[in-house]
Amino acid sequence: MTVPVRSIDYVEATMALVPDNTLITQTPEQGRELAIMLARKTIGAIQPDAEVRETLRPGYATNADSLTMAGHVVAIEFATVAAANNYWRA
Amino acid sequence: MTVPVRSIDYVEATMALVPDNTLITQTPEQGRELAIMLARKTIGAIQPDAEVRETLRPGYATNADSLTMAGHVVAIEFATVAAANNYWRA
Amino acid sequence: MTVPVRSIDYVEATMALVPDNTLITQTPEQGRELAIMLARKTIGAIQPDAEVRETLRPGYATNADSLTMAGHVVAIEFATVAAANNYWRA
Amino acid sequence: MTVPVRSIDYVEATMALVPDNTLITQTPEQGRELAIMLARKTIGAIQPDAEVRETLRPGYATNADSLTMAGHVVAIEFATVAAANNYWRA
Amino acid sequence: MTVPVRSIDYVEATMALVPDNTLITQTPEQGRELAIMLARKTIGAIQPDAEVRETLRPGYATNADSLTMAGHVVAIEFATVAAANNYWRA
Amino acid sequence: MTVPVRSIDYVEATMALVPDNTLITQTPEQGRELAIMLARKTIGAIQPDAEVRETLRPGYATNADSLTMAGHVVAIEFATVAAANNYWRA
Repeated sequence: MTVPVRSIDYVEATMALVPDNTLITQTPEQGRELAIMLARKTIGAIQPDAEVRETLRPGYATNADSLTMAGHVVAIEFATVAAANNYWRA
Repeated sequence: MTVPVRSIDYVEATMALVPDNTLITQTPEQGRELAIMLARKTIGAIQPDAEVRETLRPGYATNADSLTMAGHVVAIEFATVAAANNYWRA
Repeated sequence: MTVPVRSIDYVEATMALVPDNTLITQTPEQGRELAIMLARKTIGAIQPDAEVRETLRPGYATNADSLTMAGHVVAIEFATVAAANNYWRA
Repeated sequence: MTVPVRSIDYVEATMALVPDNTLITQTPEQGRELAIMLARKTIGAIQPDAEVRETLRPGYATNADSLTMAGHVVAIEFATVAAANNYWRA
Repeated sequence: MTVPVRSIDYVEATMALVPDNTLITQTPEQGRELAIMLARKTIGAIQPDAEVRETLRPGYATNADSLTMAGHVVAIEFATVAAANNYWRA
Repeated sequence: MTVPVRSIDYVEATMALVPDNTLITQTPEQGRELAIMLARKTIGAIQPDAEVRETLRPGYATNADSLTMAGHVVAIEFATVAAANNYWRA
């Protein structure tokens, strides 16, 4: 399997690491979606080949520890997003 | 085993990532329950096939390190929820 | 080995996730004990079968990395408890 | 190898989880020592048999990842101790 | 394979651990790029041989858990960068 | 291989866990260097035998996940150092 690794221009290859270039969201639900997106965009920046990422998904999505590890990253991203939004306190 | 992975519409497939769309709870106990729910909802977003998740559970729930890893994620989610609620100080 | 997994009512099965329903303690020592309890209660919520948990303990308690992983979770729980108590500053 | 696990009275078996029952130290150096002690005391609470802990040490102290994992826990404990001390700013 | 490890002067061998010697960025997007750079610079400080790092990349970039672990580190670096920038609130 | 483990006096064996006994640095770059030093000093405290640490380095410095794990610890140490320095805001 050929893996086209682009170690120099990988940042440029991704459209945006932070969707809409802001951490501010209207609701916790949107904040959670942003956290998931942030986590995924990082993976896309490190491994920019979408085809490779797709081949990894079945194994990873059917392994409990892999899912927990992914959920862990989302939890950390969400902590940042929630703080940015003052926890959406009324 | 066929794994119906939906990589595009998986967010839509989950009802809500944040139950009641708020981080505010009345008590630490409820905050802890929310932390567990947040952790579980993320897994549901990454692996939306409930049947697959169910097949993973027996192995994961009987492995000490897997349980510790899951508890780790809950601890991080709870840190966010607790901060959102100013730690439920009287 | 039959593992009676209760995926729906597992929260109800645990008496309390947060002992005394508060993060406030009188001393750092008590805060540390609470952190350990929080970590353990989560495991109990995920794997409510005490007998299964007991069978996991010997292997886990004699493995250095497993112990470190458990200590890691306690450290995170304690960070939250300590912040809740303003670090018990005089 | 017989492992005398005391799952009920293990907290009582440890003298103190937080030495001197305070997070306040005079210097960062002392704060770092406290962080190491906190991490070790937790392990002692989970595995109270000193002889077992001693048997685990050679393998763990000669494994790079195990050392990194232990250093990770100390880093988290130190974050809490440092915050408690307002980072020992003059 | 010969690995030229420089354990004493490795810090000097790296140009800069923090690009532009600041955590302040104009936008969240730039903050995210900085977080990725910080994570990469640390790896460069620990393993200063670029050729060795390059040999590690194919295996790591095609392993889901390795990618998640790397994304985890970026999430933590970003938390620091975001706090430094007061989350780029308007 | 004989591993001279000193479990009692290991703290004394290390000169200092916190170089210069302060978390305050003049620049982010220096803060990053301190974070790396803090992480290394902890490993030195846990495994005080420099020769053993040196034997571990080749395997660890050529393993992507080991490098990521080490970078993870540095990220956490840096979060503390950065907070101590109010993120070196002008």
